[in-house]
Amino acid sequence: MGYQLVEKTLSKENIFKGRIIDVNLHDVVLPNGKKSKREVVNHPGAVAVLAVTDDEKLVLVKQFRKPLDKVIAEIPAGKLEKGEEPKACALRELEEETGYCADHIEEIMSFYTSPGFADEIIYLYLAKGLKDGKKQTDEDEFVELMEVSFSEAMNLIKANIIHDAKTICAIQHWLLNNK
Amino acid sequence: MGYQLVEKTLSKENIFKGRIIDVNLHDVVLPNGKKSKREVVNHPGAVAVLAVTDDEKLVLVKQFRKPLDKVIAEIPAGKLEKGEEPKACALRELEEETGYCADHIEEIMSFYTSPGFADEIIYLYLAKGLKDGKKQTDEDEFVELMEVSFSEAMNLIKANIIHDAKTICAIQHWLLNNK
Repeated sequence: MGYQLVEKTLSKENIFKGRIIDVNLHDVVLPNGKKSKREVVNHPGAVAVLAVTDDEKLVLVKQFRKPLDKVIAEIPAGKLEKGEEPKACALRELEEETGYCADHIEEIMSFYTSPGFADEIIYLYLAKGLKDGKKQTDEDEFVELMEVSFSEAMNLIKANIIHDAKTICAIQHWLLNNK
Repeated sequence: MGYQLVEKTLSKENIFKGRIIDVNLHDVVLPNGKKSKREVVNHPGAVAVLAVTDDEKLVLVKQFRKPLDKVIAEIPAGKLEKGEEPKACALRELEEETGYCADHIEEIMSFYTSPGFADEIIYLYLAKGLKDGKKQTDEDEFVELMEVSFSEAMNLIKANIIHDAKTICAIQHWLLNNK
């Protein structure tokens, strides 16, 4: 067919500027020259931490997620502050949400969560050598901690208590590299 | 601490009603009784298809993603139409985007893509016994097809050509169950 895969923005309208997301509506030119609109959610990016204790337990945080109107269990995560490097954010979010510091932290991978409408990227880190630090959640953040074996984690996935992409990706990564 | 993990919506304002997403701003009561705002992107849900050929190649679609302003390779996917069952959507999207029908289709898992601000859920299906059907992309959809071995897919992940959560989850699931 020979179309070039690109969509040039002719103009964009800012629909919303929020604390977490911005929403912009783009007028674009499609590969076939026709015009269309693209709804784009802009997000500052985030980190997530696959934190594993010395006895190979996975650290999870349970919190209420308004978009789902329910509580799910996820790996610790948080959005990047302005100018913050992902590794520093990972260590900060891990300590704030769980109280753990980590002797060892390394990037595993990164991924876009929903590239059809959002630019959010998550940088996934592995944290080991966990030591007690200082838990300090944000004023609008309420979390409960869990530590489970990876086989219990698989049961939590089957039960939809773990039910989000980044947490499942992280668990799968661990199992692929540690089974 | 004893907080109940829930956030009750007192009122919500509709910020945007789009073709793909709606955006709503909720005034909520936090577990400690204080008030806060939650930015919520509502999405109809989607399916994604881990389609594997008889010679164990993974079917990928390359398309330009406006939110990222670049082309990435993903497993075939699409949003649910009103009233559409996920399995039917999976078969429809697979055929429309790739031209393949499938003798065998089964749900693998589901996951929320970004529960911090969106309610989007993806139902991931495995499709095997692929046969030629009729490719028919939407009028604003431009895709190129690729078929790669799972070991090539791992290289595409390292190269960030595959760079999204659902595709990485699907590949990791295959490797965990077929290595």
